[in-house]
Amino acid sequence: MPEDITFNQPIIKYQNGAFIDQSDNIATEFPLTLYINQQEFATIVCSPTHLEELVLGFLASEGVIFRQGDIQNIHLDDSKGFCHITLNREIEQHSGQYTKRMISSCCGKSRQFYFVNDAATSKVSMTETKITAAEIFSMMAALQEQSTDFKQTGGLHNAAISDGKNFYIHRSDIGRHNALDKLFGYCIKQRIPIRDKVLIFSGRISSEILIKASKIGVGIILSKSAPTDLAIKLADDLNITAVGFIRNESFNIYSHPERII
Amino acid sequence: MPEDITFNQPIIKYQNGAFIDQSDNIATEFPLTLYINQQEFATIVCSPTHLEELVLGFLASEGVIFRQGDIQNIHLDDSKGFCHITLNREIEQHSGQYTKRMISSCCGKSRQFYFVNDAATSKVSMTETKITAAEIFSMMAALQEQSTDFKQTGGLHNAAISDGKNFYIHRSDIGRHNALDKLFGYCIKQRIPIRDKVLIFSGRISSEILIKASKIGVGIILSKSAPTDLAIKLADDLNITAVGFIRNESFNIYSHPERII
Repeated sequence: MPEDITFNQPIIKYQNGAFIDQSDNIATEFPLTLYINQQEFATIVCSPTHLEELVLGFLASEGVIFRQGDIQNIHLDDSKGFCHITLNREIEQHSGQYTKRMISSCCGKSRQFYFVNDAATSKVSMTETKITAAEIFSMMAALQEQSTDFKQTGGLHNAAISDGKNFYIHRSDIGRHNALDKLFGYCIKQRIPIRDKVLIFSGRISSEILIKASKIGVGIILSKSAPTDLAIKLADDLNITAVGFIRNESFNIYSHPERII
Repeated sequence: MPEDITFNQPIIKYQNGAFIDQSDNIATEFPLTLYINQQEFATIVCSPTHLEELVLGFLASEGVIFRQGDIQNIHLDDSKGFCHITLNREIEQHSGQYTKRMISSCCGKSRQFYFVNDAATSKVSMTETKITAAEIFSMMAALQEQSTDFKQTGGLHNAAISDGKNFYIHRSDIGRHNALDKLFGYCIKQRIPIRDKVLIFSGRISSEILIKASKIGVGIILSKSAPTDLAIKLADDLNITAVGFIRNESFNIYSHPERII
């Protein structure tokens, strides 16, 4: 079995001019290597929880699978950190192509994509969901309440998917992407429709995070932190509402404000 | 020319129950694709400053070059985001191998490495440098003072290399790794010896950041934030002093405390 998400270990604390022996909760990092059809595909360095959901979400966001039924067999050896996945078909692309820079503008308006694979798997949001300012504050408050491991270690990213009302699912990981992939994998496994949901995230909205949100299929992303310019351009193009700096009864809307009422 | 490190753009702010039109400084993201000997090698998504230093530091930390003299020619086309590098020799490994999981324990004590390439390019520190608590606080204060772009956008990572006394060099980037690679590239270009220096970093010390610090060659890493368990194990093995949570006259020492006096 892999370790826990945090690990207690001795440290030396400097405080009030003195060195004190103490112990502290530290976030664990767990390398998980995926083999697809017996070929090494990728190594994900992650917090060791919800590993099968992580694998499902990762493969879906990389465009390797489109539904759980694409997988014939999944064998997770979490003592060694290996996961063997057998697909119902040949893998279409070699992993080397997944990070190939896309040069030409082959996808209409969205010229912001820099990787071929992202342009192929990102989706323009078709959501008709609208949310209120009160719902924004309550979803962010729920994320922060559930982030107990973060409070312990200061080292984890937190993410949740919610409809602003009854549905709320939360995941933590040392990796920004992993927290989102775990949510994605959960929704794939439970066959939960995502189009009407909202993504709530503790970290910065970079272009990679925005692309991931689009792959997951949400139309609204809420963050405690700032977006980048490229993320805002992508959000414009992909019809996603990006809200940042949600703090102390204020927030900023960076794209598609029509969904915030 | 690439854009600036930040970009001013209109947003909608929600405050005191009302929506207000406003503008805000947003961090820019710039995709830079490297071609080595005319073959696509990698795309780095970065803040568009100090690009040549970034390329040098990235190639050195990937083990592609060992010194600036390994490069015959470097041509940076920063209007399109391309950098063409001609080496004095054939490139030894295909980029696909750079992220191959290392299975066997071929490097003695350090079994924590999960990538072949990291095990080959990380160095056990030989530093004899010692620093005081006062120097730790003053180096972290200097990092925070210089982080004006971070204050503007909330979206940048900051890093510096210092000797705790006269030498101090600072870099910012939206990518954690990039900020460190820019410092590494600067030191390579200026032929500055790193062994006696200290790395100061605004973000969390993950295993990847610790490995990067080791490749750069510092013996001490200071962070405002937390380390992970794997980073602490690697710091133990690589003879690096890791100090975290440097805040309000206190900090935590996670490895090799003998260098803090």
